[in-house]
Amino acid sequence: MPFTRFDRYVDRHARSFTERLQALCRMPSVAARGTGMRAVAEAVEQMLQRTGAGTRSFKIGSGFPIVYGECGAGERCFVVYGHYDVQPVGQLTDWSSGPFAAAITDGKLYARGASNSKGDLVARVAAVEAYQKTFGKLPVCLRFIVEGEDGLASPSLYRFPDEHAELLRADGCIWDDGYKDTNERLVVSLGFKGIAFLELRTHGARTDLHSKWGGIVPNPAWRLVQALATIASPKGVITVDGFSSHVAPVTAEDKQTLKTVQLDEAGLRREFRIGQWVRGMTGKELTKELIFGPTCTICGIRTGHTEAGAKTILPGAATARLDFRLVPDLTPELVVKLLRSHLDTRGFQDIEIVELGGAPYAKSSPTSYVARAAIESAGEIYGAPPVVYPLDPASGPVGAVCGVQFPPTPVVSFGVSYSGSNPHGPDENIRLDDFLQGIKYFGRIIHRLAELEEDESAKPEGDIIVQLNR
Amino acid sequence: MPFTRFDRYVDRHARSFTERLQALCRMPSVAARGTGMRAVAEAVEQMLQRTGAGTRSFKIGSGFPIVYGECGAGERCFVVYGHYDVQPVGQLTDWSSGPFAAAITDGKLYARGASNSKGDLVARVAAVEAYQKTFGKLPVCLRFIVEGEDGLASPSLYRFPDEHAELLRADGCIWDDGYKDTNERLVVSLGFKGIAFLELRTHGARTDLHSKWGGIVPNPAWRLVQALATIASPKGVITVDGFSSHVAPVTAEDKQTLKTVQLDEAGLRREFRIGQWVRGMTGKELTKELIFGPTCTICGIRTGHTEAGAKTILPGAATARLDFRLVPDLTPELVVKLLRSHLDTRGFQDIEIVELGGAPYAKSSPTSYVARAAIESAGEIYGAPPVVYPLDPASGPVGAVCGVQFPPTPVVSFGVSYSGSNPHGPDENIRLDDFLQGIKYFGRIIHRLAELEEDESAKPEGDIIVQLNR
Repeated sequence: MPFTRFDRYVDRHARSFTERLQALCRMPSVAARGTGMRAVAEAVEQMLQRTGAGTRSFKIGSGFPIVYGECGAGERCFVVYGHYDVQPVGQLTDWSSGPFAAAITDGKLYARGASNSKGDLVARVAAVEAYQKTFGKLPVCLRFIVEGEDGLASPSLYRFPDEHAELLRADGCIWDDGYKDTNERLVVSLGFKGIAFLELRTHGARTDLHSKWGGIVPNPAWRLVQALATIASPKGVITVDGFSSHVAPVTAEDKQTLKTVQLDEAGLRREFRIGQWVRGMTGKELTKELIFGPTCTICGIRTGHTEAGAKTILPGAATARLDFRLVPDLTPELVVKLLRSHLDTRGFQDIEIVELGGAPYAKSSPTSYVARAAIESAGEIYGAPPVVYPLDPASGPVGAVCGVQFPPTPVVSFGVSYSGSNPHGPDENIRLDDFLQGIKYFGRIIHRLAELEEDESAKPEGDIIVQLNR
Repeated sequence: MPFTRFDRYVDRHARSFTERLQALCRMPSVAARGTGMRAVAEAVEQMLQRTGAGTRSFKIGSGFPIVYGECGAGERCFVVYGHYDVQPVGQLTDWSSGPFAAAITDGKLYARGASNSKGDLVARVAAVEAYQKTFGKLPVCLRFIVEGEDGLASPSLYRFPDEHAELLRADGCIWDDGYKDTNERLVVSLGFKGIAFLELRTHGARTDLHSKWGGIVPNPAWRLVQALATIASPKGVITVDGFSSHVAPVTAEDKQTLKTVQLDEAGLRREFRIGQWVRGMTGKELTKELIFGPTCTICGIRTGHTEAGAKTILPGAATARLDFRLVPDLTPELVVKLLRSHLDTRGFQDIEIVELGGAPYAKSSPTSYVARAAIESAGEIYGAPPVVYPLDPASGPVGAVCGVQFPPTPVVSFGVSYSGSNPHGPDENIRLDDFLQGIKYFGRIIHRLAELEEDESAKPEGDIIVQLNR
């Protein structure tokens, strides 16, 4: 395939593509803070316009704009999802350089949002440009849809299909979540776990009190701890009544695909600096838990005083933030219902459940256009077939995008990050080599999406996955 | 007793005493922040000097100065404890006016530190001044010792006796913690619970991770919750192995005194806005629990992300701050030892216990000079005998001050606060009428401390307490 000129174009423009990414990373766009969001949305729209894409910007209610850009033409049409907002930076002191300095050190670009996921967005738009400059017109229609509320559970994106479902109808969807694992193997996911994100809240006295009252005034922190302790066992098993009965058995096809996934256990343990995995799991058991296990994570607890100073108080309120990652057949609605009933049964009627967000799981076939294009294009760039996850342990508002038609739009996800990218923590970064590979990879996917024969897409391809990853 | 002139002096100077208190409250002295501490210490020293007291300022290590001021002369000598530091202000938005504005509204002075306890300090120094202006010299020697680390568990005060024990030897000690209860009865305490203040800390991955790892990477927040859940029962009973066996039975004398303590249960519940007390306790059971029950309070939990924004992370660390309030025969050292063993037995060896501070309980006889002077002087000012607590549910570094001799210096505590003072929360305040009453009360105590016959002080006075409070 004549990608020589394409690759040369990418290499010659490596610096300008990198600077384009730096410029975007230097625009802070923490959705949770909400400042500067419109400027970043406009920058994204302009970047799309430079490829000749027709663009539109949708503002839904008081949300941050959704940028839509359509380029290319062809019988087939694919949605390319991205987001321009970034996670909160956390403790500034945990960062080696400013989270919005976009400093490059040892070939890595450090910035909040570099990995999650401005790097993917810029790489994909760069691939479109390189493709147009070297091949001419795109052979397929790409519909970029770039939201600004990934960090807010995507309220606008969920409402977007109400009026604009036609913009989301497609032969496939390409998501922006992915990385190379600790073995430097590209990970391609054929779906996402769902998520139920919620808060448990409880109250005691109207305000924090002197802790001398500790023996007689109800302490919401104790109450929350006691309630939480019933939700998971000390061994990390979710013990919400009825929860496990809704977890579907792993299918034979999925078991087969699972065999291809190799976690670099030692590398990850080093990376995370942990002694062992939950319950001392290893090997197949560990991989199965990661991919097909539901989770319940305490994301944070807020109560009382924990800053410097001996402030001995009895808190007036306590809040825990939990996320459940959902595998078939769990839904966000079901989880909230089960949890409510579980707490009520144990006398915790006073503990309020506040839903902060939710998304269904999504799971697509390995025979879809997007899955095949992603899997079959990888070897040429990455020197090895990708590791294919039947379900990504992460979640996204993929249901909002892929659920506009039935059967749901097949989805595939990959990205330019690596195992050290730390996308939700300090020193988030990507490697510039990965960024450039990502541009070249996406160019080949564009090409392949047009080439794939239709009948092939119906062929069962469980075997292919195994073969690619042995 | 010729207090007519004394009272007139106080009334005529009410405004200037109040302004003196406002000035002190307008100097922020949050020990946990550590700024402006020296200026406040100097202001306190100058205030003492204005009464003719000889003063010294002791700086121990890198601590905040301890201000010492000695005034009066006589056979008997009494330590008057105070502190010039204040609690952190918490959320500024929870305050109706600035915490250091010292605004007066409806006869109440609102300021962080007004109740805890600049009001007491200023009132006592004002009483010395009024006494000198109307009676002449003080009939006893008063040794003011005013520290700046009450909010930091008093590290300097604990080291103070190493070199200056002679300054603390006394016939009694007057502490600065006290208030009128919801029935407007003055509370006088004959001791304090001890305290063990500590943190439980645990770690997972080296940093916060994306919560997709929730099923396989150990979550320190879950670990902390599971450990905490073993420390107290859902009913609020401390379940640390061996803990209850160290709680001494309430003595017959204390049971007698307990009868005199009447909690305004309905008033307090309204004040705190709580439906009921822990375990639904009421009456004698409730009072006994408040005064003679040990406590274990979760003062705060810090882990993960709880601010705005859907930041779904797996925390890298989790910390809980606990205080245990200690009754006879519990000591801070014993509590830490029992807790360590309790956690180890349950496999929580990884959970670190960090001691943040501790103080032994203190309990003195109702027949001491200070107890009698405080109890017997109250009626004239407050129109009723005080409510006598055999043990204050709060704690202080009283052991550092009273433990320099054996038997320990008898201690008594009272103050100018009231049930709505909210000393550790927002809108901390005192009522100016209480402040002025406090000055008049302290003047009478000074007088009475010199008058009391020595042999009376040896007389068992269990009866007096009951009689005073029936």
